Amino acid sequence: MSIEQKKPIIAITMGDPAGIGPEITISAMLNSDMHTYCHPLVIGSGKVLERTAKAINKSCTIHRIACPDEATYRIGIIDVIETGSYAEDSIRMGEIQELAGRMSYDWILKSIELGMSGKIDGVNSAPISKQAIKLAGVAEAGHQEIFRVKTGSPYTLVMFSCRKLRVFMLSGHMSLIDACHYVTKNNIARTLVLINRELNKMGLDKPLIAVSALNPHLGDLGLFGNEEVDQIIPAIQEAREMGINAIGPIPADSIYHLGEDGDFAAILSLYHDQAHIACKTLDFEKSCAITFGLPFIRGTVDHGVAFDIAGKGIANPSSLIETTRVLAEIALKQKRI
Amino acid sequence: MSIEQKKPIIAITMGDPAGIGPEITISAMLNSDMHTYCHPLVIGSGKVLERTAKAINKSCTIHRIACPDEATYRIGIIDVIETGSYAEDSIRMGEIQELAGRMSYDWILKSIELGMSGKIDGVNSAPISKQAIKLAGVAEAGHQEIFRVKTGSPYTLVMFSCRKLRVFMLSGHMSLIDACHYVTKNNIARTLVLINRELNKMGLDKPLIAVSALNPHLGDLGLFGNEEVDQIIPAIQEAREMGINAIGPIPADSIYHLGEDGDFAAILSLYHDQAHIACKTLDFEKSCAITFGLPFIRGTVDHGVAFDIAGKGIANPSSLIETTRVLAEIALKQKRI
Repeated sequence: MSIEQKKPIIAITMGDPAGIGPEITISAMLNSDMHTYCHPLVIGSGKVLERTAKAINKSCTIHRIACPDEATYRIGIIDVIETGSYAEDSIRMGEIQELAGRMSYDWILKSIELGMSGKIDGVNSAPISKQAIKLAGVAEAGHQEIFRVKTGSPYTLVMFSCRKLRVFMLSGHMSLIDACHYVTKNNIARTLVLINRELNKMGLDKPLIAVSALNPHLGDLGLFGNEEVDQIIPAIQEAREMGINAIGPIPADSIYHLGEDGDFAAILSLYHDQAHIACKTLDFEKSCAITFGLPFIRGTVDHGVAFDIAGKGIANPSSLIETTRVLAEIALKQKRI
Repeated sequence: MSIEQKKPIIAITMGDPAGIGPEITISAMLNSDMHTYCHPLVIGSGKVLERTAKAINKSCTIHRIACPDEATYRIGIIDVIETGSYAEDSIRMGEIQELAGRMSYDWILKSIELGMSGKIDGVNSAPISKQAIKLAGVAEAGHQEIFRVKTGSPYTLVMFSCRKLRVFMLSGHMSLIDACHYVTKNNIARTLVLINRELNKMGLDKPLIAVSALNPHLGDLGLFGNEEVDQIIPAIQEAREMGINAIGPIPADSIYHLGEDGDFAAILSLYHDQAHIACKTLDFEKSCAITFGLPFIRGTVDHGVAFDIAGKGIANPSSLIETTRVLAEIALKQKRI
């Protein structure tokens, strides 16, 4: 028998304390699957966790620690790393507040510090309020930007995960017309290089990367839309000449179905909604976003702070648990290299 | 107890005889669910059916009839309406042939004749080869165009169906950039009127029609993409002023998930791949395309002739059966009015 694989340590930042972050964090931490996947700990406020556990009627012990070495990793005991003291009692549930923004930002910074020093293997970010961190004077717009800037990473690469689907995106938050214009040979080839590199880091040798088409039915190869012929096919060819196992373009209405069957190591979507429609329609609860390109792996649930239901104990922790599972799987593969 | 609802008569046109049409037609006709949904009959060639049944080792009786009145509608007996005699023995499986194109075209025309005269309630079209009908001198490009032209219908409206998802499309086979430009207030409002009319014909009063967004996250209402603010919201408003129960825009990565939960009577997608990615990723086998706007309801499976596996008995009839189910459901609703 082989020696038990050392479990990766995954930190959950609690997110905006006025949102559903604290309650889904508690529910997830009390889920036994979480402890099968990894050693999970929380970065947040012990006081908020205690208050929330009481409000949603969950029995657990909050165990304040200074660093991961002190963690117990036992179900029923929630290990929490704090970042100083706040006026937690003044937090009003379901509201955009400067203090809540500051707290959630401090916890993200702490996760980056621990990630950079190698004391944790991955970070799972519970949802924050972009407005709240803005009120707190944070310059970056959201998680993605904070992680990239504060780790000094030259690029980040977001992968959307849902069941067996692993989907990278050529572009993110831009208009669909701009995203169409962004479909160039150079952009695609460069992104394929980055994806290939990240998959290599996970121990995947010559991973098969399938590239989606932009136009319906591949534009019938020029009849409606020229991007397949002029940009996508040459980009794939260039990538192949660099030794990357890229294939495509495959019509967007088939590629995700094939990906779901596990046919590819990853898919490259050519715009934001291709990836998002596929994953979220396939299984909303199992969809999560993973960021590659940082010194450590990081992920986030695919929902927001849900201020309207915060504190009521009805928020679903499935997505947070699933994201932890995916992060642990990737962290483990990266550790093996 | 209520009297048993009269079952709608659904004709299956056999499709290209050199493709998988004949074998999936036989498999579907021998499926008991088909006979629960409707009274199914075939428009095609008795000889091809007999030959195919033998080749794929299916036991059944081919019952040639002149009109639907003569049909038995019993499992094990396949009622088939023919359109004259052909040199069926010369058909080579898996090849594009003029004769196969002519036969499949004749069967489509017969289905239109029966549909126009009210002798059948719906038509389910097994796949044809566009190249074969072109060789046979057919001017129209495919099913869709033949049905529209030969029935003299001013418009057709395609709905993609998958489980509870009912998705109409603003545009079809055009490049994604052209599809973006096609997102205008007038085009959306006009399409909403047509969708509402077709849903009314099915007995749905004030059906809730949800309109998808074009840009990711609604373009953050102008930050990346103006179509939501300039075109989509005004179109929905105009439709509502006309008494249509339209809502939206809803981000494309949520609307299909919500639709799957049965939240809407229908969804309007703003381009081809929105609808297709959602349905085919959700459940490839349960995806089918329904055409509204004809004097009768018509549908088709969402796959092609599959020449590479034709005649081998391995083609999956699920999609043909599911399309029949959806057509029967719609035909029944239309008949009740």
